[in-house]
Amino acid sequence: MVLEKINQVNDIKKLKKEEIFLLANEIRQFLINKISVKGGHLASNLGVIELTMALHLAFDLPKDKIIWDVGHQSYTHKVLTGRKDEFDNLREFEGLSGFPKRTESSCDSFDTGHSSTSISAGLGIAHARDLSAENFYVVSVIGDGALTGGMAFEALNNASALKTNLIIVLNDNEMSISKNVGGMSEYLGHLRTSSQYTDLKTNVINTLEKIPNIGSMAVNTIRKTKSGIKQLILPGMLFENMDIKYLGPLDGYDIEKLVKAFNDAKKVNGPVIVHVVTKKGKGYLPAERHPSRFHGTGAFKVENGIPESPSKKSGYTDVFSTVMKKMGERDEKVVAITAAMADGTGLKRFARKFPDRFFDVGIAEQHGVTFAAGLAVGGLKPVFAVYSSFLQRAYDQVIHDVCMQNLHVVFAIDRAGLVGKDGQTHQGVFDLSYLTMMPNMTVMAPKNKWELSDMLKFALKYDGPIALRYPRGEAYDGLQSFRKEIQYGISEIIYDEDEIALLAVGNMVKISEKVRMLLKEKGHNVTLINARFVKPFDKKLIENLGEKHRLLVTLEENVLAGGFGQQVLAYINQENIDIKVLNIGIEDTFIEQGSVEVLQRECHIDAVSVADRIINHLRIYK
Amino acid sequence: MVLEKINQVNDIKKLKKEEIFLLANEIRQFLINKISVKGGHLASNLGVIELTMALHLAFDLPKDKIIWDVGHQSYTHKVLTGRKDEFDNLREFEGLSGFPKRTESSCDSFDTGHSSTSISAGLGIAHARDLSAENFYVVSVIGDGALTGGMAFEALNNASALKTNLIIVLNDNEMSISKNVGGMSEYLGHLRTSSQYTDLKTNVINTLEKIPNIGSMAVNTIRKTKSGIKQLILPGMLFENMDIKYLGPLDGYDIEKLVKAFNDAKKVNGPVIVHVVTKKGKGYLPAERHPSRFHGTGAFKVENGIPESPSKKSGYTDVFSTVMKKMGERDEKVVAITAAMADGTGLKRFARKFPDRFFDVGIAEQHGVTFAAGLAVGGLKPVFAVYSSFLQRAYDQVIHDVCMQNLHVVFAIDRAGLVGKDGQTHQGVFDLSYLTMMPNMTVMAPKNKWELSDMLKFALKYDGPIALRYPRGEAYDGLQSFRKEIQYGISEIIYDEDEIALLAVGNMVKISEKVRMLLKEKGHNVTLINARFVKPFDKKLIENLGEKHRLLVTLEENVLAGGFGQQVLAYINQENIDIKVLNIGIEDTFIEQGSVEVLQRECHIDAVSVADRIINHLRIYK
Repeated sequence: MVLEKINQVNDIKKLKKEEIFLLANEIRQFLINKISVKGGHLASNLGVIELTMALHLAFDLPKDKIIWDVGHQSYTHKVLTGRKDEFDNLREFEGLSGFPKRTESSCDSFDTGHSSTSISAGLGIAHARDLSAENFYVVSVIGDGALTGGMAFEALNNASALKTNLIIVLNDNEMSISKNVGGMSEYLGHLRTSSQYTDLKTNVINTLEKIPNIGSMAVNTIRKTKSGIKQLILPGMLFENMDIKYLGPLDGYDIEKLVKAFNDAKKVNGPVIVHVVTKKGKGYLPAERHPSRFHGTGAFKVENGIPESPSKKSGYTDVFSTVMKKMGERDEKVVAITAAMADGTGLKRFARKFPDRFFDVGIAEQHGVTFAAGLAVGGLKPVFAVYSSFLQRAYDQVIHDVCMQNLHVVFAIDRAGLVGKDGQTHQGVFDLSYLTMMPNMTVMAPKNKWELSDMLKFALKYDGPIALRYPRGEAYDGLQSFRKEIQYGISEIIYDEDEIALLAVGNMVKISEKVRMLLKEKGHNVTLINARFVKPFDKKLIENLGEKHRLLVTLEENVLAGGFGQQVLAYINQENIDIKVLNIGIEDTFIEQGSVEVLQRECHIDAVSVADRIINHLRIYK
Repeated sequence: MVLEKINQVNDIKKLKKEEIFLLANEIRQFLINKISVKGGHLASNLGVIELTMALHLAFDLPKDKIIWDVGHQSYTHKVLTGRKDEFDNLREFEGLSGFPKRTESSCDSFDTGHSSTSISAGLGIAHARDLSAENFYVVSVIGDGALTGGMAFEALNNASALKTNLIIVLNDNEMSISKNVGGMSEYLGHLRTSSQYTDLKTNVINTLEKIPNIGSMAVNTIRKTKSGIKQLILPGMLFENMDIKYLGPLDGYDIEKLVKAFNDAKKVNGPVIVHVVTKKGKGYLPAERHPSRFHGTGAFKVENGIPESPSKKSGYTDVFSTVMKKMGERDEKVVAITAAMADGTGLKRFARKFPDRFFDVGIAEQHGVTFAAGLAVGGLKPVFAVYSSFLQRAYDQVIHDVCMQNLHVVFAIDRAGLVGKDGQTHQGVFDLSYLTMMPNMTVMAPKNKWELSDMLKFALKYDGPIALRYPRGEAYDGLQSFRKEIQYGISEIIYDEDEIALLAVGNMVKISEKVRMLLKEKGHNVTLINARFVKPFDKKLIENLGEKHRLLVTLEENVLAGGFGQQVLAYINQENIDIKVLNIGIEDTFIEQGSVEVLQRECHIDAVSVADRIINHLRIYK
């Protein structure tokens, strides 16, 4: 095994040429085997094995800096930098991260997770290098999908102005997570098929050079000027129009040519784009055929790619998917928007049924929100389905373009709360705080699958900005008999007792059922309330709680700062309501990766911890 | 006066040709006169008088929809839609807004204020039109500065995919508020001077058409295909590469040609860009010469452009400006970043002194923040100077790229709190909430000019994400003798008494001095504390307040939801500290335009209102 020789950074440089090619195959098999057991991002990582090896051969790590945009494609980089033995704990609590982490290796130069940040970060690092008179290369590796994110364009624009030496590797796999859409993808398509241009260029230059006297001058002119014939014969005009040099397109599996191109790129003054064409899932047929399914996968059988123990229970995403399709049938004004997450958000079914009413805007949450605002002004009922942590990108647009005009846009916020193995960057633990501070916004959270369905229907009937947030994974199917009609701003009392009142948001209702049982075992009486509405919350209900209860416990899978509990407490304080309050939520720290269950325990929001905290708290008031 | 004939929308269409030209001059004079008295956005509005008139002549309002990007250039549009008599109340409380407002006129089709939203909104409205089988034109008017904002690019990318009929008027005044920078501006520069290409195209086509048989076919090929010779001879390749048609460049002061171009644009299938070259301040020499000074201006003398009663007191921005320059001299690692606001944020002096360490990234807050993160990783000390409401654009990047890696980026947040006449879109009333929920973030606010200076120095010495927020306008120079050294997380006790404790953030300290006097007049004892640190706030101090005080009043010019007060209350509740709490801040509503003093009264956070509220509150506890 060649892989056995790879134990730290730059070991790859000691290999013989024929070993290099063996190593690519071994890494491919290694990743398939490891991910088939632990789950993880497969398709993207299989696509960039050779590209990563070429980067490691051409550059000098950790002196040179590689920034992996999004970062979920950094597995080969981890293998090549002494971390291959840690893949058995990949994405587990306290294990190897699925993303680059500066705390994990000196070869990880910038933490990533969300899309389209790598050019900005790389430009900053490169410019700091120049100001500090240091000498190393900075490489930002960005996918064609991530290039549709506006901040990547902002960064390209700025890179062009600064003229800093920065190598941008465009990892063009002809798709982002969803099929890539838009002008940029069309443009890249033209580039990919433009080898005839490259040949044409060579021919023109060769021909001209043969002409005495004027020949070489003309060649220089062609080489130097942006205008004129060069635009006819060179691909990459979009980039070159922005004064960014362009090399490519290159076969992403030809390591030798890639190394040569990277060495060429080192010589370029100013920013340069190296356009590399790769294929998601490369070398593993199930992943090549279904790159979207193997984007992020659970454990699967290596021989056929079939998931190990597929969950038979439907997730919140499935429920959303079903109801969206149904609502689309009922009301032709319902339209759906995704930012490159048609699969992940469950909009695929709606898209198939109503292609004209479905919009994949690319990795472009900002545009997605304001586009939705425009659709609402035009009289439609837009539903923007988005992950909680990605909607952070459009915080300003939700305030400025939706809430300020009080427009009827429905935000279906998936992956809210703890998301598990994707870790820090993907935890959806801020949304209750960032949404409830916005005037005109309504925020709901369902306790179980039935309620998600009812809330989506309610949101489509409502007129104004409205969000529903629900967690990743299996939809709770308990509490089936509790299905009171949704009424604006009204909570649902599930068990009506006295002494202690649990007021829980969304999936914390399920946990609160267990908390309640634990407290009852200790002889307490416990009321359980499903908040349903986080904003506006049910003030009348809260006003009356003091009559029978001495302690109100709020529960949310969200940061405490600015969350549901603090706002309920503020109301109780303002109205001088006679009840003690305990806020349960997430403390002021970033939450690492791990299974949701482990993380809930770590955050002390699991049933046992909460019950203990309540009992301890009661002692204070004795 | 021709202007007298303009009393409602489409009156302009009744004018004779020669009256049109008279009208342009009259509007120019009208705007100069009105803005010279009331203040407002002058340079941008003078630049687009003819462009706006041409739009009104070519399109059918309110049926057709015009979306004004940013919107501060919509004054002529307001004049032409029956609002000219309201200019005497321009930007005043309950007066005419300085921005488009759907509630103000049916001719305002989308509210704007922040940059780069118009293509997204226009695309949404246009697509809703198509799905509803309606028939009208949608026009997004966007400046070259706004085009550097990433979401504009996201929208162009999506427009290209959707192929919706949408007319994008690129109002190219060769600069945004600061001098425009970056690849896009360079590209537009090439377009502007590209009339030779247009001629060349005409020539080529004419020549080819004369060739029998193959001529017309070749012409069609040239006209239709994107590749080939067309790219040699047509400007607008960047847009055409994205499959967006391009018309221009056009003289922004030739109304007839503009109307013709707009009529041509109506015939285009799919999105089309009409590139119009204008000049900021056009026709008023002082504004042409100093467009940045006349971007947003106070009252001035018409004859020479000199400000009426220029304030002799320095503003917070001036203080920041002075200290930044000084710190730049002391430490060569200090670098500064602005998103197209070098003037407004006070970075101009730093920029002049240290051009290599100053970065104007364009209207690109997202990139600005992550670029700063990269600079910090590279060992520099970046200061990102930005308005509070614009930093909302980079909410995710502050969390994801700065706080998560705990990087030393200093956020100098100007225009925090109520900003006055710019109204809803520009109020900086969310920052305390959106920043304090971020783990690792430190948030400070100075009480007066000295403290801003000390805090900036402190922030540069600190190591980690740190923000200081200060309001628009004159810097408070009271409380000069209170200048205790800044210590991390420690508040400053200004007057130490008992009974009532006022705990004030930033500019609310000044108001609290008055509140204190009013309360003392009523016989109360009042402690006054300058919070200094909003996060982490001074827990020890708060724990001890209960000993001598029965009421703690928190004061902040920020929304209550998730703000300083609610978090202090949560701590008092958690620790079971024996003191009553009253939170003073901004209620859950968008705040209109008006002078800051008027708005403070409207929000009940002026001294008299606060004192009344405290006295009323004390009654509850009797």
